[in-house]
Amino acid sequence: MRIGLLGFGVVGKGLYDLTQSREDMQVAKVLCLEDITLPDAQVTHDFNDILRDETIDTVVEAMGGLHPAYEFVRAAMEAGKNIVTSNKALVNAYYDDLIPLAQEKGLLFRCTAAVGGGICWLSELERARRAQEITGVWGIMNGTCNYILDNMTRNGLGYGEALKQAQALGYAEADPTADVEGFDTWNKCIISANVAFGVSLEKDGVPVSGISRIAAEDVENFKAHGYVCKLIATGKKLEKGISAYVQPTLFPQGALEAAVPMNYNLISLEGSASGRQSLYGQGAGRYPTAYNVLQDCVDELAGRGFYGPCGEKTAVCNEEKLCYYIRGNADAWLESNKAEAWGNAVVTGPVAVAEAHAWLQNHPEAFLAAIAK
Amino acid sequence: MRIGLLGFGVVGKGLYDLTQSREDMQVAKVLCLEDITLPDAQVTHDFNDILRDETIDTVVEAMGGLHPAYEFVRAAMEAGKNIVTSNKALVNAYYDDLIPLAQEKGLLFRCTAAVGGGICWLSELERARRAQEITGVWGIMNGTCNYILDNMTRNGLGYGEALKQAQALGYAEADPTADVEGFDTWNKCIISANVAFGVSLEKDGVPVSGISRIAAEDVENFKAHGYVCKLIATGKKLEKGISAYVQPTLFPQGALEAAVPMNYNLISLEGSASGRQSLYGQGAGRYPTAYNVLQDCVDELAGRGFYGPCGEKTAVCNEEKLCYYIRGNADAWLESNKAEAWGNAVVTGPVAVAEAHAWLQNHPEAFLAAIAK
Repeated sequence: MRIGLLGFGVVGKGLYDLTQSREDMQVAKVLCLEDITLPDAQVTHDFNDILRDETIDTVVEAMGGLHPAYEFVRAAMEAGKNIVTSNKALVNAYYDDLIPLAQEKGLLFRCTAAVGGGICWLSELERARRAQEITGVWGIMNGTCNYILDNMTRNGLGYGEALKQAQALGYAEADPTADVEGFDTWNKCIISANVAFGVSLEKDGVPVSGISRIAAEDVENFKAHGYVCKLIATGKKLEKGISAYVQPTLFPQGALEAAVPMNYNLISLEGSASGRQSLYGQGAGRYPTAYNVLQDCVDELAGRGFYGPCGEKTAVCNEEKLCYYIRGNADAWLESNKAEAWGNAVVTGPVAVAEAHAWLQNHPEAFLAAIAK
Repeated sequence: MRIGLLGFGVVGKGLYDLTQSREDMQVAKVLCLEDITLPDAQVTHDFNDILRDETIDTVVEAMGGLHPAYEFVRAAMEAGKNIVTSNKALVNAYYDDLIPLAQEKGLLFRCTAAVGGGICWLSELERARRAQEITGVWGIMNGTCNYILDNMTRNGLGYGEALKQAQALGYAEADPTADVEGFDTWNKCIISANVAFGVSLEKDGVPVSGISRIAAEDVENFKAHGYVCKLIATGKKLEKGISAYVQPTLFPQGALEAAVPMNYNLISLEGSASGRQSLYGQGAGRYPTAYNVLQDCVDELAGRGFYGPCGEKTAVCNEEKLCYYIRGNADAWLESNKAEAWGNAVVTGPVAVAEAHAWLQNHPEAFLAAIAK
């Protein structure tokens, strides 16, 4: 395998390092904005050097962002090159475009590192689907949020202070929006549900609420009632259809999710034969992420492409009812659904996921967390 | 794939059920002591009916026990049939015999359900080895022991009472020796280390101590010091060689291992690129176990055999030093290694694993648990 590597940042450099000792693959050319030299690979500023090189059979996209990553990946596929990417935003945004194109053209397209970083999540989901029906997927898919929530829970910090520490340690970016508002988790949620259920979910129907409005008093309320808060992506196959959403969720102290420390991830599936299976590990970081990019390259060497069929466009049905912890300005809806008071906050009786998120849209001041069933 | 199924108990019947809806494989004949009839498979009391049937390409061994399982599997291999087995005792006892035979003869031999039941442990270890060095494997590999220990920890029961409840619920057998003395975990420990490190460990060097001597007062001591006790199998690649052992181990409350409830398993690896990865799920039970047997059949259809080379005979080196909780009759060794007293028990300073287990051999009254580093 001769690889054209797009990007030489955290993941790209990691992949380059991991391929150094291998005989079955070689990074031949690297697209990189900086002026660096590598002993065994040509560095270029021009994507066309990779696109037009017929000896390059596989493009590894490790640039991140939507543009020009999409244009480059699409052009590489049009030129008959196989793709490995760790770019969750790209895969989610262009799922209906890139996956069918790969399958029409008989190209291999894998993106295991896009969900769960170094965890064998998508590849295990592919394996699980061969032998059973998957009825649910869920988990902690963002290390930044887990680090912040874990720090607030263990050390009683406020949100702002916990975020600042995460930034100082490199666990959160200077602009943390994509992580703390749940958008990163949302991309991973939709990709996971698509692969698990063999569909292409209508993305607009998947609500997301993040952790930026959580306060120290919320964490104290959770502790007092024996709960720990995590940001959770969920996909479920229910009688009425497929449910999918991202929201802070409360787990009993002692639950496996509650024990996930620092920036680790934990992702689970429920299968008709295996029951619950959970995978735990590093959801980000140079070598864990590059490890799964490398695994995808090994799988492509063995002829393995995407994890399943692209699947049909499918609307999301979030009628499932959950109880919610909500701290926000009271109104008629909140009053009528109130079951308990926890400090200044309310715990509702069972309300539909779609309904709770619709209410939240109109209450930008509020913080909401579902109570895990 | 036409399957000759040996045994129609928990796992065998499970596999039969799971293959019903598949077009790529079929249980053609079943070896079973009882007089049953099946609509689509011939039931026989005579193994030769399966051995001599040239249309049967794969033998699935789900009988358990060493004999006649070994003789049947060996004869099937001599006759050119591929093997799938869930029998950890068989795979461990005849590792140096069956794995090289499969590789010499170009036969496929898989045993994913032998370690971790329904968890994708051995198959993920196979995947992990393709892309990195594995430096450690460890985990909770026996659901019976975990159920007993969890029940003692959560509900303050004594060992005898917890065992009785486990037996009543079907989580422990009438004769629980293989589980509670750690022999089942010992088989899984050695198979895991063999696959992870590409060796064939000398089994005599792998010490095992189980949970049958634990008492309610030990669990109280652990609680008072913030620990939870689990039965753990460990394999490590250290500078001096490979270390492997099975022993009760104390984890801080809040550690992932401490959160494993009921009869669940949690198995981990440490890899040079991925870092820690942990897999959680059902370590036993009809459909979880049969699920991994089915997965092995699917992998064999794709031409995948054993997880790696058999590896060379390798002596175990248990010089690694750990601190131990020991409750037993005091003697000079215990006195000289004593660092703290916890109730009637002693916590030692760092002592070599081999040394602690040698001492335990001469102290049949004692209970010992390592403190996880």
